[in-house]
Amino acid sequence: MDKSYKVFLNEKDIPRQWYNLAADLPGTLNPPLGPDGNPVSPDMLAPVFPMNLIEQEVSTQRWIDIPEGVLELLYRWRPSPLVRARHLEKALNTPARIYYKNESVSPAGSHKPNTAVAQAWYNKEFGVKKLVTETGAGQWGTALAFACSLLGLECKVFMVRISFDQKPYRKLMMHAYGANCVASPSNETQAGRDILEKYPDTPGSLGIAISEAIEEAVSEPGGKARYSLGSVLNHVMLHQTIIGLEAKKQLALVNEKKVDVVIGCAGGGSNFAGISFPFVSDKIHGADIDIIPVEPASCPTLTRAPFHYDHGDTAEMTPLLAMHSLGHGFIPPPIHAGGLRYHGISPLISHSVNEGLMRPEALQQLECYEAALLFAQTEGLIVAPETSHAVAQTIREAYRAREEGKEKVILFNLSGHGFLDLTGYEKYLNGELTNHSLSDEDLNRFTESLKKYPAPKTSKVQTG
Amino acid sequence: MDKSYKVFLNEKDIPRQWYNLAADLPGTLNPPLGPDGNPVSPDMLAPVFPMNLIEQEVSTQRWIDIPEGVLELLYRWRPSPLVRARHLEKALNTPARIYYKNESVSPAGSHKPNTAVAQAWYNKEFGVKKLVTETGAGQWGTALAFACSLLGLECKVFMVRISFDQKPYRKLMMHAYGANCVASPSNETQAGRDILEKYPDTPGSLGIAISEAIEEAVSEPGGKARYSLGSVLNHVMLHQTIIGLEAKKQLALVNEKKVDVVIGCAGGGSNFAGISFPFVSDKIHGADIDIIPVEPASCPTLTRAPFHYDHGDTAEMTPLLAMHSLGHGFIPPPIHAGGLRYHGISPLISHSVNEGLMRPEALQQLECYEAALLFAQTEGLIVAPETSHAVAQTIREAYRAREEGKEKVILFNLSGHGFLDLTGYEKYLNGELTNHSLSDEDLNRFTESLKKYPAPKTSKVQTG
Repeated sequence: MDKSYKVFLNEKDIPRQWYNLAADLPGTLNPPLGPDGNPVSPDMLAPVFPMNLIEQEVSTQRWIDIPEGVLELLYRWRPSPLVRARHLEKALNTPARIYYKNESVSPAGSHKPNTAVAQAWYNKEFGVKKLVTETGAGQWGTALAFACSLLGLECKVFMVRISFDQKPYRKLMMHAYGANCVASPSNETQAGRDILEKYPDTPGSLGIAISEAIEEAVSEPGGKARYSLGSVLNHVMLHQTIIGLEAKKQLALVNEKKVDVVIGCAGGGSNFAGISFPFVSDKIHGADIDIIPVEPASCPTLTRAPFHYDHGDTAEMTPLLAMHSLGHGFIPPPIHAGGLRYHGISPLISHSVNEGLMRPEALQQLECYEAALLFAQTEGLIVAPETSHAVAQTIREAYRAREEGKEKVILFNLSGHGFLDLTGYEKYLNGELTNHSLSDEDLNRFTESLKKYPAPKTSKVQTG
Repeated sequence: MDKSYKVFLNEKDIPRQWYNLAADLPGTLNPPLGPDGNPVSPDMLAPVFPMNLIEQEVSTQRWIDIPEGVLELLYRWRPSPLVRARHLEKALNTPARIYYKNESVSPAGSHKPNTAVAQAWYNKEFGVKKLVTETGAGQWGTALAFACSLLGLECKVFMVRISFDQKPYRKLMMHAYGANCVASPSNETQAGRDILEKYPDTPGSLGIAISEAIEEAVSEPGGKARYSLGSVLNHVMLHQTIIGLEAKKQLALVNEKKVDVVIGCAGGGSNFAGISFPFVSDKIHGADIDIIPVEPASCPTLTRAPFHYDHGDTAEMTPLLAMHSLGHGFIPPPIHAGGLRYHGISPLISHSVNEGLMRPEALQQLECYEAALLFAQTEGLIVAPETSHAVAQTIREAYRAREEGKEKVILFNLSGHGFLDLTGYEKYLNGELTNHSLSDEDLNRFTESLKKYPAPKTSKVQTG
């Protein structure tokens, strides 16, 4: 019987291919649509993304080789540890065996660098000199700044103004990695200037920041810049699958032959896709696995929003994506899990939910903070507020295993640490936080806007 | 030829004994002295520390078993990774092979939990219910709060007021771990009230905070509380030796038979002792190793201060320790490496320097920040400002190896990450930082106070 806590995988045993769920999903994926309602062609995306990443975006090949150059970048922190949460198990008095993949060990502190280094590497291969992106709470901006720093690429980040002002540490990390981080809306783009003229005191939004980033990327002379996105898109999910692929190898090292439950928090969907897609493959091929994306009750994309075509941004600049969406005008309440406040979610995850391959759950933030504090006081790590949703669902499943008297194996993704998110914990401890649920009235109001877009095809009944 | 970056040690191969340098040091160690000038007896320390730790403090046994209960606590993050800094080597174009021990992976983010969990465990074994300590920048307070949280002990931290106000994140981390962190001077102790009456606006000091912590610990009814210190003392150094002992095993795993240079930053001395003491043992037994503690030029304890008996605190409450000291009234300039601003340093390290076993260096902070940024842009990690001193010296030694055309093996301790210390980086990038050197006048002024204390015995000429 293995008694270890941490399961390390040697660098030589790192997965050398990413897993592409699009190759295995039942049903037909709905393609992204352009403003004319017709599918977007790769050429139309060329000013925004390099062609090598566009090819990955539309690929249906099951396994895609990870270039040696990307592996060299990933080795800085990968393979990440798989940890048996024995102390949490004991505190819960559960027969379940709980494992977590610790993605907080990356230099940027979350899973985001898995795709950031891959995207930066492919862009550099393609001859791109500069990457432009947006960031909300700052995790993605930090990750891309880190990746560009390693590869000597210029990096520009439009950071939502309210976060820029309230979360200075993330901005400072981007500066330390040599990136240029500016508050959005800024005076540096037409989109930014237009907004500032109308609303000089706006706190900004992710939608505005995306518009600024795309504008700057496509208008750079000589086409030397491209835009980079940290979630939602297929190639981003692809790059994250290394998380689940490593976890499989590590579970085998400690003779775990079967996983019963796979859990991850879900905003745009990238960390959840990373831990779960290799197990979704097993499920498609007959395995009995409960695969649970966990979202905040205040932003219930998978549990309550309709499956529909919608824009990825508020300013309607992106193609239309077929996804569960609360409407791109959705304004989430100010919960502390900033990374989970997105109106949409990855089309691949949306499709998987529609096909019954995943069982989404929505949780309230008070339960999540309580769970995170129990985790800190047993396992030691203070997790990000986003990750606390995965921890809370894990505790629910561990109690369920106890009620059922079953020795279940539960795997969850510890997507990031909470070193820079401690104000949320403090407010929770001071009793200053409340739960938020989206009212039916608000749900209807925000999703009303979806009616002007085409309806995607779906083989099953909509979840929303 | 091994090509890996990270060298993992399995949990089953973790060192099971700490190494006690006091057993091997040449010459005679000068004992701590009480107010009467006579050596302090263990009984006199009993109200402050539990007897099992006092026994370790005075032990001359070479190897001391790590209790199974402490190992269970350490497994949460230990063994820590040893990393080959191949990207830094390449950037420096050096024939040296550079390795670093990554202590930033602990849940509190530094090496401090190595002794915090041991101290908390021994205190709990002894029946203690509550630990009281002080903290400057907050690293030690966080570590002890973490340790007490795991073991269910009450924890009280007196945090220097200026840090309490300016570094809220560390305070919030302590709260998340369930500790009671108060600004010092406080109204909760006589020492604090006396100071506040005279100087209501004082920013506080480590010396005052120590006084408050000891007072609260010894005056707790029923003797249920004890005081805990995070550096300087022998038992603290002992607990940290697991760092160097692990490193030796990991170097053997990649067939490194000989280490040429061992480097760590040095404030009170605990992380430096941790990485270096097992190698000091080799040096005593004939090995040719350059062992370098690195301190800030603004606080040149080992490079310029006399070896003398002095108090550990400003308020003169602690026993007199034989150490290199700038005088307990020393006021360091406000450099960002808060953990290196202590007036004294571990007696074991002081003695080793006197015996010629270590070669201390003092560096300026601008060189250290520049080094840390190169490290971030090659290896990826943003290190703590304290750690940047070790990085800068490593770079110096790597260049020296290049000049000499030698394939040296350099090992340094990455004592902590810089996630909560980013303002220093920002000021450096904005050109707002300057170098600080201690003037001879100030050195003489601060060390004048030492003359009233006895002179320790030393077999060699003083370094200061």
